[in-house]
Amino acid sequence: MGPFDRTDYEDRLAKTRARMEQVGLDLLLVTDPANMHYLTGYDGWSFYVPQLVAVPIEPEDPVWIGRGIDANGARVTTFLNDGDIFGYSDDYVQTPDRHPMNFVADVLRARGWGGRVIAVEMDSYYFSARGFEVLRHDLPNATFRDAQELVNWVRAIKSTKEIALMRCAGRIMDRVMAVAVDAVRPGVRQCDAVAAIQHAQVTGLPELGGDYTSIVPMLPTGPGTSTPHLTWSDEPFRDGEATIMELAACHRRYHCPQARTVFLGQPPQRLSDAAAAVVDGLNAALDAVKPGVTCEEVEGAWRGAIAKSGLVKESRIGYSTGLNYPPDWGEHTMSLRPGDRTVMQPDMTFHMIPGIWQDDWGIEISECFRVTETGAEPFATTPRQLFVKR
Amino acid sequence: MGPFDRTDYEDRLAKTRARMEQVGLDLLLVTDPANMHYLTGYDGWSFYVPQLVAVPIEPEDPVWIGRGIDANGARVTTFLNDGDIFGYSDDYVQTPDRHPMNFVADVLRARGWGGRVIAVEMDSYYFSARGFEVLRHDLPNATFRDAQELVNWVRAIKSTKEIALMRCAGRIMDRVMAVAVDAVRPGVRQCDAVAAIQHAQVTGLPELGGDYTSIVPMLPTGPGTSTPHLTWSDEPFRDGEATIMELAACHRRYHCPQARTVFLGQPPQRLSDAAAAVVDGLNAALDAVKPGVTCEEVEGAWRGAIAKSGLVKESRIGYSTGLNYPPDWGEHTMSLRPGDRTVMQPDMTFHMIPGIWQDDWGIEISECFRVTETGAEPFATTPRQLFVKR
Repeated sequence: MGPFDRTDYEDRLAKTRARMEQVGLDLLLVTDPANMHYLTGYDGWSFYVPQLVAVPIEPEDPVWIGRGIDANGARVTTFLNDGDIFGYSDDYVQTPDRHPMNFVADVLRARGWGGRVIAVEMDSYYFSARGFEVLRHDLPNATFRDAQELVNWVRAIKSTKEIALMRCAGRIMDRVMAVAVDAVRPGVRQCDAVAAIQHAQVTGLPELGGDYTSIVPMLPTGPGTSTPHLTWSDEPFRDGEATIMELAACHRRYHCPQARTVFLGQPPQRLSDAAAAVVDGLNAALDAVKPGVTCEEVEGAWRGAIAKSGLVKESRIGYSTGLNYPPDWGEHTMSLRPGDRTVMQPDMTFHMIPGIWQDDWGIEISECFRVTETGAEPFATTPRQLFVKR
Repeated sequence: MGPFDRTDYEDRLAKTRARMEQVGLDLLLVTDPANMHYLTGYDGWSFYVPQLVAVPIEPEDPVWIGRGIDANGARVTTFLNDGDIFGYSDDYVQTPDRHPMNFVADVLRARGWGGRVIAVEMDSYYFSARGFEVLRHDLPNATFRDAQELVNWVRAIKSTKEIALMRCAGRIMDRVMAVAVDAVRPGVRQCDAVAAIQHAQVTGLPELGGDYTSIVPMLPTGPGTSTPHLTWSDEPFRDGEATIMELAACHRRYHCPQARTVFLGQPPQRLSDAAAAVVDGLNAALDAVKPGVTCEEVEGAWRGAIAKSGLVKESRIGYSTGLNYPPDWGEHTMSLRPGDRTVMQPDMTFHMIPGIWQDDWGIEISECFRVTETGAEPFATTPRQLFVKR
């Protein structure tokens, strides 16, 4: 399953344990599906019910705990032995009188881990406040800590194999954006354009299939371009309107996101001016990328370049990306913004997306890149411009 | 935006407040995106950052709180006034030293709600354990309660307009499954079949566009059919193998899910036998549906019908469905299983999916239906059978 082998997982587990040791943890409960996949290979759309990978500080195999009907999924997709895969019965699922975390607590206790210093990913989507209460209730001898984004930080620097997967995603992305720019035409229903986009995302290339992206195509159009996260409707695209497309391509769960903006007809001067300023700023920020600079310094290069344009941007201009599952392809670690003093290192990977959203219009032109030994390597090659279709 | 108007939202809010009153709540924080949409119309792929709708017990407009760049999305998609829309600045996003719930607490306090009995959706995907801790810390005078699935239960009985949307989804589903059955052929890459499926899902019909489904196509194939939640790969379908397709169609966030199984070649006898038993059981359970029967009685009809086949199924055979957002189209209320004594009422809507997953094979044939005055009305018309392609 995938290009990774046992030594890759051992390496990742060793790095995770080194961080656990630094902060005094002896058991880590991993509920973020990307982190579960990273440490064991587990893959499947089963994160809508509680599931986790438990990583003890000792160098032994982790334990997968999830819904009974998904246990075969763990057997198919991970390197774990049967004895380390625990499935709860279906009467734990979405029922008021018991919770899957009751079962998890039983397994942890049976393993002798009931009195440990246990870290949980307290801001992960698929570890709920109720689940945490149940766990604390059922394991009164444990000491609970917030793991913060411990495994996410291990993921921040990609391996050669991971970079190769992101390059594959980048190649697919080139085709996806070409299809997308072509599909947006006056009178075409938004849903028909997105159908073409999703087809391109999933078909991929003849030698390279596409996987589902962690976010569906975001496609604000017309006045909707004043905000980034609207999806599509049945309405047609209209002449004289802009459409922002924030898309991605994904190969084996590794993403290359990219945003571009299309204008149908003659764009207003403010939009053309904004496009020029955003491209200048994006180029300046990409030029500033190299090992040793901080995330906020890269943002500063953007800020300096656009200062003369009069554009103002309060929100961050980028974030770490790569392996992920819905609802986000961001890794929740580094952000390109003032105050983030994380030092860039080779094989960190980012999505730089300095979107501009004003009262009733907006524009996005973005780039996904790797930090190299000397600079930035974009994964895709779509021209950095406002696409004007007359 | 959509077929719903202010009176629909007033009606939903009144029903929500009646339940709040019953259990002694004077403020409800709604974080489930389907519940947020249901009560205000809010729509957008922004649930990957904390956001919520606060519903006070008084009959006044709710308050939307979310990320600043999404506030225009609330203006575009909801009926709320500007004064009831609060966006937090981007330095709250994914940063270790502050949390969006700090901002939420400030807003609630400013509204005079800091000392209320506040219910939170403790098992919703997008309300985190960390967020809850921050909220409790910042609002020491509040009393917190678990809202359980309060709004989900209000959603259990659909309105005429909602049923109309699900019928639209059902019509799209017919085409989606036809495309899917056609696309699975020996030698075709799984990703190419899914590309065709997703295209059909999103294009919809000429008069009826498709929306994104809350779950991507699930497509276990070959030995993978032993577990339900695997997605696709670049590998081709193989002659002599089964493929399970659990799909949905979605129209304006309302779903009609459906599962079917395809076999390429001559199916083994055990699979043909299982298909016959599952169809019998599905029909028997659908025949048992009518107002006044309980969910467990409907499951009992399935259980009785398949008893002679030797098949055993421990997991639930269905759940409430309709409006939803990723990662699940289930509503987390009623389940068709022993112990669920919820009484069926007209315009409840379910996905009945008695999947069979054995050690190295499985089968799924499902139906999404509405409870009518006298029985069950399926939303789609795909034949209930194992599709054999020789």
